[in-house]
Amino acid sequence: MPTISRKGLLMPESPIRKLVPFAEGAKKRGVKVIHLNIGQPDIKTPQIAIDAIKNCDMDILAYSRTEGSDTYREKIAQYYAKNDIHVLAQDIIVTTGGSEALSFTMGTIADAEDEIIIPEPFYANYNGFATAAGIKVVPVVSHIESNFALPPIEEFEKLITPNTKAILICNPGNPTGYLYSREEIKKLAKIVKKHNLFLIADEVYREFTYDGKEHYSILQEEGLEENAIIVDSVSKRYSMCGARIGYLVSRNKEFVKTALKFAQARLSPPTYAQIASEAALDTPQEYFDDVKKEYVARRNVLISELKKIEGIKVAEPQGAFYCIAELPIDNSDTFAQWLLEDFNVDGETVMVAPAAGFYATEGLGTKQIRIAYVLEKEELIRAVYIIKEALKAYKS
Amino acid sequence: MPTISRKGLLMPESPIRKLVPFAEGAKKRGVKVIHLNIGQPDIKTPQIAIDAIKNCDMDILAYSRTEGSDTYREKIAQYYAKNDIHVLAQDIIVTTGGSEALSFTMGTIADAEDEIIIPEPFYANYNGFATAAGIKVVPVVSHIESNFALPPIEEFEKLITPNTKAILICNPGNPTGYLYSREEIKKLAKIVKKHNLFLIADEVYREFTYDGKEHYSILQEEGLEENAIIVDSVSKRYSMCGARIGYLVSRNKEFVKTALKFAQARLSPPTYAQIASEAALDTPQEYFDDVKKEYVARRNVLISELKKIEGIKVAEPQGAFYCIAELPIDNSDTFAQWLLEDFNVDGETVMVAPAAGFYATEGLGTKQIRIAYVLEKEELIRAVYIIKEALKAYKS
Repeated sequence: MPTISRKGLLMPESPIRKLVPFAEGAKKRGVKVIHLNIGQPDIKTPQIAIDAIKNCDMDILAYSRTEGSDTYREKIAQYYAKNDIHVLAQDIIVTTGGSEALSFTMGTIADAEDEIIIPEPFYANYNGFATAAGIKVVPVVSHIESNFALPPIEEFEKLITPNTKAILICNPGNPTGYLYSREEIKKLAKIVKKHNLFLIADEVYREFTYDGKEHYSILQEEGLEENAIIVDSVSKRYSMCGARIGYLVSRNKEFVKTALKFAQARLSPPTYAQIASEAALDTPQEYFDDVKKEYVARRNVLISELKKIEGIKVAEPQGAFYCIAELPIDNSDTFAQWLLEDFNVDGETVMVAPAAGFYATEGLGTKQIRIAYVLEKEELIRAVYIIKEALKAYKS
Repeated sequence: MPTISRKGLLMPESPIRKLVPFAEGAKKRGVKVIHLNIGQPDIKTPQIAIDAIKNCDMDILAYSRTEGSDTYREKIAQYYAKNDIHVLAQDIIVTTGGSEALSFTMGTIADAEDEIIIPEPFYANYNGFATAAGIKVVPVVSHIESNFALPPIEEFEKLITPNTKAILICNPGNPTGYLYSREEIKKLAKIVKKHNLFLIADEVYREFTYDGKEHYSILQEEGLEENAIIVDSVSKRYSMCGARIGYLVSRNKEFVKTALKFAQARLSPPTYAQIASEAALDTPQEYFDDVKKEYVARRNVLISELKKIEGIKVAEPQGAFYCIAELPIDNSDTFAQWLLEDFNVDGETVMVAPAAGFYATEGLGTKQIRIAYVLEKEELIRAVYIIKEALKAYKS
């Protein structure tokens, strides 16, 4: 029999995926499952984007341009300008989701055995893209007690080797909800310049910042032109996860030119999705104001309910729509499975994402879970109540 | 300044891309460029696919399933059954274009420094995906004199090393238009079984076979269950290149399970495109009959016109919509550029794809060009006339 590649065997499974059969089992037994585990927002896609597809007349669903159309990239540049990020259309490559932007970035900057430093916990698929490219993820631990703030810069310094090619952050963070401050970004800028590294920022949650805090992009930091790479996406911003449109943005011309060669091999990003995404750029500001208000209300209710649980630790997220909680249990993998297999309150249970899958260091995060607050407040209150009851039953 | 990866530097540029500025230059000078260089068909997308998008009502453009929806994969399995290829829905992973199916396949079966044997000339982007994965493409030469038939199987045998993981064919071939016979597939089946290799067939042009010849898929070959992997796509079949929907098909469960991990990392294929692609499966047979008739007519006129050129060699394609011609010149790269920069007949010129980019062996194909016959007959006749006049002018 022909053999599977080593990296194929090493490819991590999604930390949520292994729970799916248990969730399906619960549903088969008539138990309603409240999904706290997924990042699929329940927010409506802007009507302007949906209408653009309905009204688009085409005879031939043709390839688009490899790097995205000129008009779309011009409009993206204008969007960034409004956010005080000054880039040109030619600094942008439209990709098939933020996922592809990450793959292209890793391929462009690192070879097999090269290293990328990432504060953990981090978005689990970074592991997938790194494994696919044979790149080593070097984690630096952040802690729930400080809301997962940037670890001391000396911790990064210690981990830098001749094989280190980049530091990768997610800002605001999935799964942490942490929003890096201007000062933290400046510290990162200093260290990447000192060691000639790339600084990659996954800024797909840029618009989701709360409590009057403003997002500070690595592309707003002066002097970082050659180092800074932004990964972006329409998925969460416009509740268009299914579009699969993202972008890479960098002022480093050599980087963009090389990433474009990876893009050429796959021909072009999806045409329909680009039409919807270009239209979405004209979404009125009220849409975002409403969405933000809704997420703040959800977060507030979620955090205050969670804090009522004895023995829990909860991070206070200021961005994105995730929150990590540390439960008074031994192992959240087992607990999450038990919730689906053996527990319900009046025919309802909860599916959570065990957080160990967001850590690269073995043994970390084993008591933690990630909660996505992409459900209505009433559902969130109910879900936390179920967790609370579950913890009582689980311990006894 | 941070450095680009070795593989980034090695990533090949599209062989056509470097001519684009010259084509743009010609257009700026008011010269009309007839594009023989591209694989974007001028055939209309089936109305049923376009309508599915226009009529689709959605509030939230949500993620689809990683492997594609159950209903879509069931329907794909039925499509294959009608083509005497018997697979189950779970043998299929829906991908973002045939491109992604190829990337996932390479990642799943080969590590850096592993080797894949490919008859050359071959689709240039195979090089891109292989380079991105650090895999070595080992070419085995096929010849214009035999219409690019399968090279003697001993030639493959000679190239097999402990690092060889697979043989990859494109059937019918881009850029050759060659359709492998049942006997050729059986020879390949025998050698991959003998050496425990995967046999990957890019069958995206399956429906485009002419002169009463039938396509014989590697998945029709018995005993090849563990070895055979099909890469497929809706792009050409339904003239939906911009959808970016393809699939991987294999009965090797270990392969599919591993490829699915690569798919999980990128979340899901584009949602709108899947809706259009699922609807396209109901395209009436007359659509394909008409398209085939049109391509046969185009091919016939193209070949007969080309053969009138003195000193030319032309392969006789029996599938796809490409044809390779060897011209009485030294270098088709230079000639193709000259056509755009310095030549026109009454304000018209031609853009062709120099064929050297489809060979991995340095120095091969330098006199050859690839012509895509995705234009109407009158345009093709005109284009060949321009090439004929150009050759006269070029030599003097």
